[in-house]
Amino acid sequence: MSLEWEQITHITKVDPAKPLPSDLGVLEGTDLVIVGGSDGVTEENTIDAIESIANTYPSVPVFQEPYSAAHVSRETIETADFVAVPAVFNGDRTHFVGKHTALFTEIARKPEDLLGASLPVVGNFIESKGVDAVADLTETLVGEGYVVQHLDSAAASVSGVDTTYTPEQVAGAALATETFYGFPIFYIEYSGTYGGTDDVEAAARYLEDTQLVYGGGIDNQEKATAVLEAGADAIVVGDCFHDDPAQFRATIPK
Amino acid sequence: MSLEWEQITHITKVDPAKPLPSDLGVLEGTDLVIVGGSDGVTEENTIDAIESIANTYPSVPVFQEPYSAAHVSRETIETADFVAVPAVFNGDRTHFVGKHTALFTEIARKPEDLLGASLPVVGNFIESKGVDAVADLTETLVGEGYVVQHLDSAAASVSGVDTTYTPEQVAGAALATETFYGFPIFYIEYSGTYGGTDDVEAAARYLEDTQLVYGGGIDNQEKATAVLEAGADAIVVGDCFHDDPAQFRATIPK
Repeated sequence: MSLEWEQITHITKVDPAKPLPSDLGVLEGTDLVIVGGSDGVTEENTIDAIESIANTYPSVPVFQEPYSAAHVSRETIETADFVAVPAVFNGDRTHFVGKHTALFTEIARKPEDLLGASLPVVGNFIESKGVDAVADLTETLVGEGYVVQHLDSAAASVSGVDTTYTPEQVAGAALATETFYGFPIFYIEYSGTYGGTDDVEAAARYLEDTQLVYGGGIDNQEKATAVLEAGADAIVVGDCFHDDPAQFRATIPK
Repeated sequence: MSLEWEQITHITKVDPAKPLPSDLGVLEGTDLVIVGGSDGVTEENTIDAIESIANTYPSVPVFQEPYSAAHVSRETIETADFVAVPAVFNGDRTHFVGKHTALFTEIARKPEDLLGASLPVVGNFIESKGVDAVADLTETLVGEGYVVQHLDSAAASVSGVDTTYTPEQVAGAALATETFYGFPIFYIEYSGTYGGTDDVEAAARYLEDTQLVYGGGIDNQEKATAVLEAGADAIVVGDCFHDDPAQFRATIPK
């Protein structure tokens, strides 16, 4: 599946540890679904959530966004369209470079664990046929440059975030994403609280090829519109999807 | 100046704190020059070194590779063709993300310091005309994914490197550079010692769009050939350029 970003304005974040709404028809009009969370998330409930959504809306792309390597397996990679890999600018070293290098080292060394195939290996390195398989796998991994702006959140504690960024620093991280690190997505995460539009405006000045995504506290049409008009390419709506279907529906642009 | 990487096999690293050889004709046949170092490097001696080389070989591209922001100024940026910005995989957080975010924050907030122009500013952010100037500036910055493999070196101590990588980890960092971080260069740095070909072979399997550069201890044709045949796109020769012109000449492929 290839992504057509210009079509993606409304993203739903689904926590696989929470029950799905009884009527998945509430998703009508959302453009992308991200499945991920921290507490209680397993490989099994991740697959269940992705499959339920894909069965109901087969044309809506579904990302898995794992918080830990234990949530990723051959089955989750096969079930999801893409696997989102956050790199947290204001997190600790592990969450910007450490765990990624470990992940890519594992893929380069022993890809069959993730690919489910028996691949020809020479020493610790796979042969050329395996290199092609590794290239296919890495194409499903989508980097996200993250800034986590709510210290009292699971996202912050999991990523070692102990300080938020000023709008100037958000702009710098956005510019670094666009021109230096090259992640296709820059994600401003207020995780459960509404952060207003300052950070989005600051980042939007420097993003052209990068998709600017905002998540946090969007629970009505006014906030959705304000963030999109401030320059976000897409908004992420999470909590109210599980808790309040009517409120969730109000966030989907008409 | 645009870079034609397929033409670049031999790179000379010049320490601007050391005297240049009396006859710069020794550079005949090198494809790229990188000017940078730690001890005793200043903005002034950097500019002097770049200008001497550019006057003698105007068609050879020259990179400035600053170890510190104090080495970079509007003049160095104007004098060099590109500014190389290392991101050190096995360094500390500062040297993979911290100082880069600070640099891009500074560029986004107050680019006139680097651009030498008075740019229209609104609040802390520059207006659209300034955004174009920022884009021009960031195009001169070239990211390098670095692995520093010699602990007893200035490169290691400056970057907070306290552990070297196994060939498997070098392969992982190479794969991460190619598919995730998107730096155009992956640089294996043995800094003053010869590291053999294992790391180069490991990295080369996973690099297609990325240029694989090896530096460290190359002081004869045999080592130069071995590293290139192991898969490096280019070798970097430094110390003997200053110390032993005949030895330096022997490293340039015929």
